[in-house]
Amino acid sequence: MPPPRLFAQVKRFASTIVSKPMPSKTHLHAPLPDSLFPKGYVLTGIHSGIKKKPELLDLAVILSTANGPATAAACFTRNAFKAAPVVVSQEVLQRSGGGRRMGNGARDRRAPRAPPSALVHETLVMSTGVIGQTLPIEKIIAGISSQATAASARNLGSTFEAWERAARAFMTTDTFPKLRARSFTINGKEYRLAGMDKGAGMIHPNMGPPAPAPPAVGVDLRGRWSFNSISVDGDMSTNDTIVVLANGAAISDSEIQEEIDEEHDKTAYETFRDELTAFATELAQLVVRDGEGATKFVTVSVEGAPTYEDAHKVASRISTSALVKTALFGEDANWGRILAATGSIPLSAPLDPTRVSVSFVPVDGSSPLPLLVNGEPEKVDEVRAKEIVSAEDLEIKVELGLGKESAKYWTCDFSYEYVKINGDYRT
Amino acid sequence: MPPPRLFAQVKRFASTIVSKPMPSKTHLHAPLPDSLFPKGYVLTGIHSGIKKKPELLDLAVILSTANGPATAAACFTRNAFKAAPVVVSQEVLQRSGGGRRMGNGARDRRAPRAPPSALVHETLVMSTGVIGQTLPIEKIIAGISSQATAASARNLGSTFEAWERAARAFMTTDTFPKLRARSFTINGKEYRLAGMDKGAGMIHPNMGPPAPAPPAVGVDLRGRWSFNSISVDGDMSTNDTIVVLANGAAISDSEIQEEIDEEHDKTAYETFRDELTAFATELAQLVVRDGEGATKFVTVSVEGAPTYEDAHKVASRISTSALVKTALFGEDANWGRILAATGSIPLSAPLDPTRVSVSFVPVDGSSPLPLLVNGEPEKVDEVRAKEIVSAEDLEIKVELGLGKESAKYWTCDFSYEYVKINGDYRT
Repeated sequence: MPPPRLFAQVKRFASTIVSKPMPSKTHLHAPLPDSLFPKGYVLTGIHSGIKKKPELLDLAVILSTANGPATAAACFTRNAFKAAPVVVSQEVLQRSGGGRRMGNGARDRRAPRAPPSALVHETLVMSTGVIGQTLPIEKIIAGISSQATAASARNLGSTFEAWERAARAFMTTDTFPKLRARSFTINGKEYRLAGMDKGAGMIHPNMGPPAPAPPAVGVDLRGRWSFNSISVDGDMSTNDTIVVLANGAAISDSEIQEEIDEEHDKTAYETFRDELTAFATELAQLVVRDGEGATKFVTVSVEGAPTYEDAHKVASRISTSALVKTALFGEDANWGRILAATGSIPLSAPLDPTRVSVSFVPVDGSSPLPLLVNGEPEKVDEVRAKEIVSAEDLEIKVELGLGKESAKYWTCDFSYEYVKINGDYRT
Repeated sequence: MPPPRLFAQVKRFASTIVSKPMPSKTHLHAPLPDSLFPKGYVLTGIHSGIKKKPELLDLAVILSTANGPATAAACFTRNAFKAAPVVVSQEVLQRSGGGRRMGNGARDRRAPRAPPSALVHETLVMSTGVIGQTLPIEKIIAGISSQATAASARNLGSTFEAWERAARAFMTTDTFPKLRARSFTINGKEYRLAGMDKGAGMIHPNMGPPAPAPPAVGVDLRGRWSFNSISVDGDMSTNDTIVVLANGAAISDSEIQEEIDEEHDKTAYETFRDELTAFATELAQLVVRDGEGATKFVTVSVEGAPTYEDAHKVASRISTSALVKTALFGEDANWGRILAATGSIPLSAPLDPTRVSVSFVPVDGSSPLPLLVNGEPEKVDEVRAKEIVSAEDLEIKVELGLGKESAKYWTCDFSYEYVKINGDYRT
């Protein structure tokens, strides 16, 4: 036993400074059945030599094997400083028209396997890491080529395990691989979506519209309700990229492919749009769940705005407020900070404080807790408030009383751990 | 001696988690000679009962004793949720026209001392604290009245000590009272400026133009180069207020007062403007020096912008970037984060990455360290970079290459201590 005095000091020290235990995230990467994953893709994660330790995966490869190259649509960061892979991928898409030259929606099923040199011109690339550091491009090309040529492609697979290996290969400060899959039926046909993403810091995407415009459905890929509505630290990356691929492999050869088209079949269109949006939201939320140092997952809902943009701006401001986020970490129901953030940005119509309400909505289905109603502070039951903010999940709801539009943002708290991770990221 | 193993653990723990020692701030509140302070004001700080412990000062009173009420001009927060004292002070100024009814620049020197009830209508008020908590107004009025009536005003004084007591009385998480004074001469006449401010968190003012317009000089009181260019945490307060008072007490009775007027005497006008701006900048910077948890004082200079607003926006974005601020805390010369922040907001002209340069400017007068020159990363001497970011003071300089306008922002780093202070602020 250490001397009692020192022990007491250590304890006090720990209770005031040390990070809270991070929430367990094991349930977020439980295995998924192979049958959920789309046909016609093979994947892997390999060690190409970017990272020093040979046991670390550092390169993910996704290859469309059915019907030639997949059709692609993508959105990219609006940051004026675009990372090299963003510029390259934009060029690839511009040149290929999103792959539509392969058959304009219907795919050219006789397309031969392209040789590796051609593959470089049809490959969308993404990278992550310290800005300004040059990556070893020879190792990356060798890594891609080793998987893209049939001869050596023995690591490629289409099972959950292969997808998971790929998702693991591009993690940086992520604590778990982010992989989701779902299937649904439209007019008796099964559709499958699988997706991976990564990110834990420098998360505040504001991506532009897809270019070229997506060939199949006019879904807002930018994710008004998904990727463009998440924040970990308010910092926009130079690398933000969303890519959607489709190669029609699920359509059997005997079947004539029909595009899902809003005019032709509105119900089918809406079902697909809603499934894709929900799927994108799920993937986007995983990033916030794994936010650097995060101990909370917080939904910020802004309602009663004159426009969607107004609601989105307010939700973004609350989601990036250092004072709101440290209060969340400290489990302090400090609604005044939410209010100050709400009022701090100009909107398309002036805010009337007497029409603004703020409440906490628990995720367990119990009653919301009003904190401010029409500009008047409620007498808050602090015990109940503490109970709500002590949960890992929490919704902050702000009613502006100015209109009918709404938006959501997903954010996390600001912890010692965030400061620690980002104070020594490069070293 | 504790057992070596535990001791080693404690040491490791301390070296990874514990806050760095805070910079000493004693030199920032050294005594100032009484002769620097303007004539015609008396001040004090008292315990009025807002705070529980009787030894804590909680109310500052400043009273203009010469020539009746002082002329006043003020700027207030643009937050849609204005704190009660902001609304009251705005009303007082609107009603009184900034005190000009007392003689439109020249003061009515025969104005009798107003009774306490009238004083309430001529008093500008400011408060600080947790948003939404109602302050005990009876105690505050009693406190003001006790000082404002000649009979009981025995605490009031005009020395440095009285000013310092007042500055101390409105501190919250501030670690030192913020008080400055200076004197200068224009056309043989001595002018004196004294000022106090407070603030350490919820610091990102964006105040509106003075209303009513200041009677004497058209200085941009909002502080393009002072209060509207500081950030601790990016959060705009509901209470931000700047008040400038002038009562002409320095003008002897035999002398005819002349207003400093740009048309009449441009040199005098510019001297006064520059002195007032420099003074406001000095006061504003004290807030950043005392930023919650701050271990660094960082000047962000943005040059080569198409407009002042563009330069100011970029400087603000860099100054509020959580990633830039944690890197500064970690003394990591991570210029990529500065670049990402720079590129993340739309400007009036598109940024051309090949014209952007970033450098660190040491405050000791030694050579600046280029990090990025015309979009190309420099081979950075990491030892030198570490040396520069390890100093308490540092300048980050960003050249946009788009025009001739520039702006500065003053900010601090983001530390464990900030999270700690704001995780338990209310408790």
